[in-house]
Amino acid sequence: EKLSHYDEAGQAHMVDVSAKSATRREAVARAFVELNESVLAALPENPKGNPLEVARFAGIMAAKKTADLIPMCHPLPLSFVDVQATVVAGGVEIRATAATVAGTGVEMEAMTAASVAALTVYDMTKALDKGIRIREVVLESKTGGKSGDYRRTAE
Amino acid sequence: EKLSHYDEAGQAHMVDVSAKSATRREAVARAFVELNESVLAALPENPKGNPLEVARFAGIMAAKKTADLIPMCHPLPLSFVDVQATVVAGGVEIRATAATVAGTGVEMEAMTAASVAALTVYDMTKALDKGIRIREVVLESKTGGKSGDYRRTAE
Amino acid sequence: EKLSHYDEAGQAHMVDVSAKSATRREAVARAFVELNESVLAALPENPKGNPLEVARFAGIMAAKKTADLIPMCHPLPLSFVDVQATVVAGGVEIRATAATVAGTGVEMEAMTAASVAALTVYDMTKALDKGIRIREVVLESKTGGKSGDYRRTAE
Amino acid sequence: EKLSHYDEAGQAHMVDVSAKSATRREAVARAFVELNESVLAALPENPKGNPLEVARFAGIMAAKKTADLIPMCHPLPLSFVDVQATVVAGGVEIRATAATVAGTGVEMEAMTAASVAALTVYDMTKALDKGIRIREVVLESKTGGKSGDYRRTAE
Amino acid sequence: EKLSHYDEAGQAHMVDVSAKSATRREAVARAFVELNESVLAALPENPKGNPLEVARFAGIMAAKKTADLIPMCHPLPLSFVDVQATVVAGGVEIRATAATVAGTGVEMEAMTAASVAALTVYDMTKALDKGIRIREVVLESKTGGKSGDYRRTAE
Amino acid sequence: EKLSHYDEAGQAHMVDVSAKSATRREAVARAFVELNESVLAALPENPKGNPLEVARFAGIMAAKKTADLIPMCHPLPLSFVDVQATVVAGGVEIRATAATVAGTGVEMEAMTAASVAALTVYDMTKALDKGIRIREVVLESKTGGKSGDYRRTAE
Repeated sequence: EKLSHYDEAGQAHMVDVSAKSATRREAVARAFVELNESVLAALPENPKGNPLEVARFAGIMAAKKTADLIPMCHPLPLSFVDVQATVVAGGVEIRATAATVAGTGVEMEAMTAASVAALTVYDMTKALDKGIRIREVVLESKTGGKSGDYRRTAE
Repeated sequence: EKLSHYDEAGQAHMVDVSAKSATRREAVARAFVELNESVLAALPENPKGNPLEVARFAGIMAAKKTADLIPMCHPLPLSFVDVQATVVAGGVEIRATAATVAGTGVEMEAMTAASVAALTVYDMTKALDKGIRIREVVLESKTGGKSGDYRRTAE
Repeated sequence: EKLSHYDEAGQAHMVDVSAKSATRREAVARAFVELNESVLAALPENPKGNPLEVARFAGIMAAKKTADLIPMCHPLPLSFVDVQATVVAGGVEIRATAATVAGTGVEMEAMTAASVAALTVYDMTKALDKGIRIREVVLESKTGGKSGDYRRTAE
Repeated sequence: EKLSHYDEAGQAHMVDVSAKSATRREAVARAFVELNESVLAALPENPKGNPLEVARFAGIMAAKKTADLIPMCHPLPLSFVDVQATVVAGGVEIRATAATVAGTGVEMEAMTAASVAALTVYDMTKALDKGIRIREVVLESKTGGKSGDYRRTAE
Repeated sequence: EKLSHYDEAGQAHMVDVSAKSATRREAVARAFVELNESVLAALPENPKGNPLEVARFAGIMAAKKTADLIPMCHPLPLSFVDVQATVVAGGVEIRATAATVAGTGVEMEAMTAASVAALTVYDMTKALDKGIRIREVVLESKTGGKSGDYRRTAE
Repeated sequence: EKLSHYDEAGQAHMVDVSAKSATRREAVARAFVELNESVLAALPENPKGNPLEVARFAGIMAAKKTADLIPMCHPLPLSFVDVQATVVAGGVEIRATAATVAGTGVEMEAMTAASVAALTVYDMTKALDKGIRIREVVLESKTGGKSGDYRRTAE
């Protein structure tokens, strides 16, 4: 077992996936933005707009920029992206799904979508409370690819 | 007090900062990537490369893409960006600083830099442990601008 | 009077605005997407989502990419962008506003925001009718700058 | 029949095209920029440059940015893009063609290329007449894919 | 004298230019693409198109992407960009000029514009000769800023 | 033999590669940045940072932006990118490799990666000597595709 993205001389590079077969791969990531009571109370007060909608769209668009942001990520023809943002006890839960038919996985696309959606919730609410915390960004599951499926276990 | 980015009809838009004076504004954000012992042990084994360096550069470059990622952010002429990534007990601590001389603040630039640096650490280490967690992204401090300075209080 | 963006030898280039004073400039553009009755009827049937919201966000984000899209446009620190999308008789009317404090105007930013919002309405409705027409994209008004104000006259 | 890009709960997302077969798909879009006599007369006066050439290149490059601009568009490996811009009676006619071998169509790529080429014509001529109108952007035809071919009928 | 972009601990970062005064700064860069006789002879055979025009536009647009490409470059509001491409004995000479009114210089914007214009000439001619060489990219001159003017001396 | 990227009417466009079979294609490009003795001596003086590492990452990320920079390049799903930067007599030698499984080659991706890595070395060292020269950017080799393999011959 070793770090990904390193060649034999120890230098970081993009892993060669030319020989990997193009199969469907999917990943789900999750982020949580902790909001206090008064910020949560302010969220639904918007007659027409909705900060969670802005966050969802930002997350979807960010998934498509993953290879632009993460140096060693391969550019991938994403076949599906979805981001859900839900008000739950104590904050907003974000769940991002990405899929591709390609030679490498989409964990980073799902993680990036979840992160940027969370950052957007922060941006839309920070006037009320600068101390708002993005409390976690994690990979929930991945399927497809030679390395096998992964599903996060409950903590 | 109300949500930022909303007009009187409740629709999300970019806040008009035309009349705000261009003064120096700085923000510092922090992210923490939780790594288990075996991943932490693998980090320094690279003779020439360094995942923390890749993360730092990714964070610096991401700060410049903030307005591309966060829908209601203004494009800003950043005058300074720095990202530090340090191995500490239990993981990697990231600290991102952004500054501008402009009519609006750079909180989102610092938060975006910290998030993308954290995502890059995840990408560089996920072959060892897919369960790695970005455990928090927070604003540490901001200075400059009419709304006053902010400094995160110890929890 | 001559074409903008051309030097004395007739070659296209970016106009030099170094000596122009940075003052507030604003522009408003309008686009109209013609929709038939059955498409208009389908628009409000979405319980949670709203194609007009997606169009608005796409337009706002596109304004920030104007200099990336239009070869001779200057990159500008936009201080304000808003896009409104309204169902009217016969279709969706889009109105995009952009502002900056800079040495050149933001007509192209407003025109680009209106165009991309209109393209997004097309994308969100084309499954119902591929013949949907973006029927016009025009500059409604501009203020600020040495060349004086402009207001489109009724036709 | 329903709006594209919506899931069962009515929330906008990117349609999952993972299972669609990769076949050649082509789309042609058309835009028209209305120019008055004096602007049309000024177009060929450039000894070396040519606003229509700038517009063509801008359109070709914009086709490649479609997924960056239109929120629910899939990133596609475009196999062909061409944009023609021709002076006709009353203005400039733009015709954009895009093709791919993929699981989804390229209507939006052709529409985006035509729109940005039209915006560029506006940008290159607006010094002569701010009232110039982009009078229509439409899909001319599409071929390939399960939904069948489409050809715009004469009005 | 020391390397730019390094802090006291020797880590690369973006230099803080917050305190520098915004004055006009200009830079000129030059690139040379060496072409053999048969390629040079093929250049003017295009009845309507012109590879040098494509190269010029690519260079102008690339100048605006400099901060996206060069990690430690500041995003700058460019006030002027021009690229000239001329057939000379033995190849194509490219000359790129960039200007800004800002707290830091535009050497990298001029160098990037010249490089990308040269790469585009290569792309447009490589079907005839893959061995075509970009033979040099250099800074010709810079003016403005505290570090003084620079003019390349003849070799 | 004729210029690539031109249609029968002589207008530049993107070549249609829809019918080409997706096979593995690889290209290697080389750039050389000439540095004088004092600049070369300053390079290793950085206790923690390393301008060659910044250059390597910039080159890798730039390869992914090739279609954004070079007007007639196809967007490609790159399966591998690597950039090496080595101190040699008289300067820094850069060697960039790109690979894809697609219907067209990656010469421009390798050339762009080498160029941007060279520009980044210039940026990181220009405080010491503005006269630093990028002395050549060339294609070293290509393999795969119908047009056959190419290997640069020694001069």
